[in-house]
Amino acid sequence: MNKKIKKVAITGGTHGNELTGVYLINKFTKNPNLVKKGSFETFFMHTNLGAMKQCTRYVEKDLNRTFTKNGLNDSTLTSYEDVLAKEINQKLGPKGSDNTNVDFVMDLHSTTSNMGLSICISTEDKLSWQVAAYVKECIPELHIFSWKGDTGDTSFISSIPPSGFTIEVGSIPQGVLRADMFFETERIVQTILDFFELYNTNKLEKTYTQIEIYDNVKTVDFPRGEDDNINAMVHPNLQENGYFELKKGDPVFVTLDGENICYEDKDGLYALFINEAAYYEKGVAMCLADKKVIEL
Amino acid sequence: MNKKIKKVAITGGTHGNELTGVYLINKFTKNPNLVKKGSFETFFMHTNLGAMKQCTRYVEKDLNRTFTKNGLNDSTLTSYEDVLAKEINQKLGPKGSDNTNVDFVMDLHSTTSNMGLSICISTEDKLSWQVAAYVKECIPELHIFSWKGDTGDTSFISSIPPSGFTIEVGSIPQGVLRADMFFETERIVQTILDFFELYNTNKLEKTYTQIEIYDNVKTVDFPRGEDDNINAMVHPNLQENGYFELKKGDPVFVTLDGENICYEDKDGLYALFINEAAYYEKGVAMCLADKKVIEL
Repeated sequence: MNKKIKKVAITGGTHGNELTGVYLINKFTKNPNLVKKGSFETFFMHTNLGAMKQCTRYVEKDLNRTFTKNGLNDSTLTSYEDVLAKEINQKLGPKGSDNTNVDFVMDLHSTTSNMGLSICISTEDKLSWQVAAYVKECIPELHIFSWKGDTGDTSFISSIPPSGFTIEVGSIPQGVLRADMFFETERIVQTILDFFELYNTNKLEKTYTQIEIYDNVKTVDFPRGEDDNINAMVHPNLQENGYFELKKGDPVFVTLDGENICYEDKDGLYALFINEAAYYEKGVAMCLADKKVIEL
Repeated sequence: MNKKIKKVAITGGTHGNELTGVYLINKFTKNPNLVKKGSFETFFMHTNLGAMKQCTRYVEKDLNRTFTKNGLNDSTLTSYEDVLAKEINQKLGPKGSDNTNVDFVMDLHSTTSNMGLSICISTEDKLSWQVAAYVKECIPELHIFSWKGDTGDTSFISSIPPSGFTIEVGSIPQGVLRADMFFETERIVQTILDFFELYNTNKLEKTYTQIEIYDNVKTVDFPRGEDDNINAMVHPNLQENGYFELKKGDPVFVTLDGENICYEDKDGLYALFINEAAYYEKGVAMCLADKKVIEL
């Protein structure tokens, strides 16, 4: 028998200009029955009301890089998002406790990168990987990206309880609602809730033993000048691609003057998170990943 | 003989998160010869450095709605953009003078709407329309949108000198550089400079007498709830369309619950500026326009 899941959290608006999550939470608030299941409680919340109000990613710092244990325990950190993270940690966690208030967090994001439907997973937790594998089986076009993030493995909101991950759907411009991707994201949410209902009632047909993933290897910054300004753009060949297999010599950037800059790393890495608006300031033009099948 | 054009201005970064213009100005700054012509001076500038630094549309208010004569003359208006507008007006204008510092402004914008290459023109000025007609002839896929704007006909930066208009290219997310559209926007800039060189040297082959335009009729807001929150999204049929001809009964929105909301206005209007991120707060989900040929 599984240890039952008691409470699952759906979070949206962690980045205030990623509207899919903001409006899905609005929808569930209006009609909570949409996410009500028999065997567990579903909790949902807007996480960054300040950023949502301004329709910006954050007010002072990226909330979804603020859930490190050190940061949560550091009372000298008093920015808007540092204070908010501590509040959210009390609601959903506390992180590291044996008895967190929720068992699982799915955090809803959009990206300006053309990644389609993706799960970004940052944990070794077995249950999280079973959920991801189930979702992938139900929605085969979905991709699984294994990434500890750009600041370490414990800074995402989904790291508060033992289990969770981030849902990334795009391409969607910041500040825009796209109907097709709104409903696709909702489909992923419902599939996850279905998993937990099956899990709690011991009706899952199998335990997943393998999964195809994109495993992060490194991030690549834009070519920049001495003034730190970007002096080359993502090459058009990559722009519309979510998961692009690179071969030595492929053009990956094009300078403002029109000259191609080519890929010189090993063949077979995949570019993803290509041209995400919010990553310009983080020094990330794309991530490079190994595509592989891992044992669960 | 034409009255010669002495100085043409290219402005970018009027909205700080529309990066095409920001980086084209960077490019021209590095190599001014790219926009140097024999018969007139080309002036270029970043207009809203504060917004560019934050990568937001504006700091306190929309700079491109701040160039009304009343606002420019009102010393009690002291927001970041009000002060900036007065400074820019001194550089490029002053507005209403018989002897403005520049003769023409092309202001470079991007939009999250899939409008391709577009000129947004807000003036009756004959020279501006001749330029637009020349660009349309050189780049037939370009569209001309005649629009006084959402706040009146004199609030755009391009309204400072006697002649000018706005260039809109999309879809591009805010905060993103897209290589293909960067070079397409540069092509429009170069075509306009070519026009003035031909104009000044009396080498234009003709005077344009007709032009096909989309003439703004009205704007349409998102369906909203009592809390002012959007409760319907742009319908997927329209999302990827730049200029979409509407017929009675066409679905134009879909509610968060998946119900279509249909068009009930007269047949034959065109929807454009569909789902522009920056217009959510302005109450504009799309503009409706008449497609017609006008005499120049």
